[in-house]
Amino acid sequence: MKKLYAIGIDIGGTAIKHGICSSEGILIQHDSIPTPADAPKAIILQKIFEVISQNLALSQEQGMPISAVGVGTPGSVDIERGYLMGSTPNFKHWRNVAIAESIKHRFDLPVFADNDANLMAFGEFSFGAGKEKKDVICLTLGTGIGGGIIIDGEIYRGSFYAGSELGHMSIDYKGRQCNCGGQGCLERYASATALIQDYNLENPKNPVSGTKQIFLLAKAKDKIAQKVIKNFVSYLAAGIANVVNIFNPEMIIIGGGVSKAGAVFIEDIRDACQKRAMPVSFKNVEIVGATLGNDAGMMGATAFALKSLGKKGVVTS
Amino acid sequence: MKKLYAIGIDIGGTAIKHGICSSEGILIQHDSIPTPADAPKAIILQKIFEVISQNLALSQEQGMPISAVGVGTPGSVDIERGYLMGSTPNFKHWRNVAIAESIKHRFDLPVFADNDANLMAFGEFSFGAGKEKKDVICLTLGTGIGGGIIIDGEIYRGSFYAGSELGHMSIDYKGRQCNCGGQGCLERYASATALIQDYNLENPKNPVSGTKQIFLLAKAKDKIAQKVIKNFVSYLAAGIANVVNIFNPEMIIIGGGVSKAGAVFIEDIRDACQKRAMPVSFKNVEIVGATLGNDAGMMGATAFALKSLGKKGVVTS
Repeated sequence: MKKLYAIGIDIGGTAIKHGICSSEGILIQHDSIPTPADAPKAIILQKIFEVISQNLALSQEQGMPISAVGVGTPGSVDIERGYLMGSTPNFKHWRNVAIAESIKHRFDLPVFADNDANLMAFGEFSFGAGKEKKDVICLTLGTGIGGGIIIDGEIYRGSFYAGSELGHMSIDYKGRQCNCGGQGCLERYASATALIQDYNLENPKNPVSGTKQIFLLAKAKDKIAQKVIKNFVSYLAAGIANVVNIFNPEMIIIGGGVSKAGAVFIEDIRDACQKRAMPVSFKNVEIVGATLGNDAGMMGATAFALKSLGKKGVVTS
Repeated sequence: MKKLYAIGIDIGGTAIKHGICSSEGILIQHDSIPTPADAPKAIILQKIFEVISQNLALSQEQGMPISAVGVGTPGSVDIERGYLMGSTPNFKHWRNVAIAESIKHRFDLPVFADNDANLMAFGEFSFGAGKEKKDVICLTLGTGIGGGIIIDGEIYRGSFYAGSELGHMSIDYKGRQCNCGGQGCLERYASATALIQDYNLENPKNPVSGTKQIFLLAKAKDKIAQKVIKNFVSYLAAGIANVVNIFNPEMIIIGGGVSKAGAVFIEDIRDACQKRAMPVSFKNVEIVGATLGNDAGMMGATAFALKSLGKKGVVTS
């Protein structure tokens, strides 16, 4: 098969990551700019146009023609139209955006957009930890928890593009209140935000600002850090056990900054999950850390764009 | 399309339901016999052979040739082989059974077997409440809670046939202990068994033996009955809200004896679910009662058998 190239854009609450990736998963270049999250739609789109122009210029220099552009954004995306339906919590005006259409209009390239957590999962599935698998579920532990579900090599989105919200699966029907309106949502217990909050609640005199600090404190035998990490593992395991019992996937991939805490941490999660999940459902499921780090979403965007191109039967060169 | 007929068998803990159904969902005949749940495998298979023989005789009388046999059983089923993998909680010896092979060997008919909750969902999807839909999730509230997931018209089973255990989704990570080894499983809160237990715990002097009684007591303004039903709705809604956020399906169908408590009960569940689920995920999801009652599993078995036949390209007449 001919090698193809795509531009990937991953719109996050703090940064817009962008780059060029080949159909074989080789990252040609990547960079990021701050997201003007409070700016009007047009300004954010303008920033996206700028990074696409940069990448196109680079691709020309390198003799690597771009076949498509893939874009990941928070929120629910109608992938047929590449349209962001409704709003997203961390942006002021980024709602109801005709993402694909706006970019197509400007660059005359095929453009495909999807939810960012879906594309992170698709990135890990295409080029990362899940590349030998076909049924993979990805949980990205960050400010919230992003869920991405790959079934038989395809992204699962639900009937109206509003499913796969694994971070908003309740693990306590009478538990912590969530911004989404729900109660006891997994992301209120097992996101990076939740871990930091839990630590600072127990140790208000010496608050931390990041999860890395908590893991370092735990290593240094800090009792509070050890306790909140233990609880965190238990919460996360409850959520993952649900995913195991419901989906019985080949692999569950844990991404986000917290997942970098190392192999022992992943091992602890696996052990705690085994205690909760149904033995028959758990038996063959691998639980692993993500391998693409912050590039997963952007690389997934390129993989999704090139795959969508193939489906549409577009002649690409 | 030519009308076809299949025999459906639904092996339950107390009864084996059986009958003949057409490809158009017309139930030609149906009946049931008690399940010898404690008997050896061979005895149970013998009972199944007997009911198949009866149905075959009847089909000959009526001039309705049988194209296939479908069988639903508790437990995880390898559908490629029609093989029950491992055991099932309510049977003593019913484990590791070559269901399809045994029946084929005896009757020389195409035979297909699957998990009973999957086939209930497939029955409601094919001929019942979900027949105009393609993405449907079914929760059957009985002794436990059976979950069936239909995605794009196909039964979802997981990578190793051990998924879709919606009754074993935890809604309280530190909640009630479940037989499956998990904690806080939905079926420990929102099955018929759980409702009866909750009532009898609150009113040990006047215990009830069925859910119907509890609903009648609630109608007669019994405070305890009203309270436990209110809690039951809240538990169930937490589970359904998770299903909504994760799957964002077109329709959720609630089956089992409890679902017959009427339209107001389903309405209460829908309202409670709306308060918990993400608005964008909940928006287009219908929540309805099942319509096929106890026949769903058996009718689903016939639909699954005829569909599987079509996929294999078997010439049927």
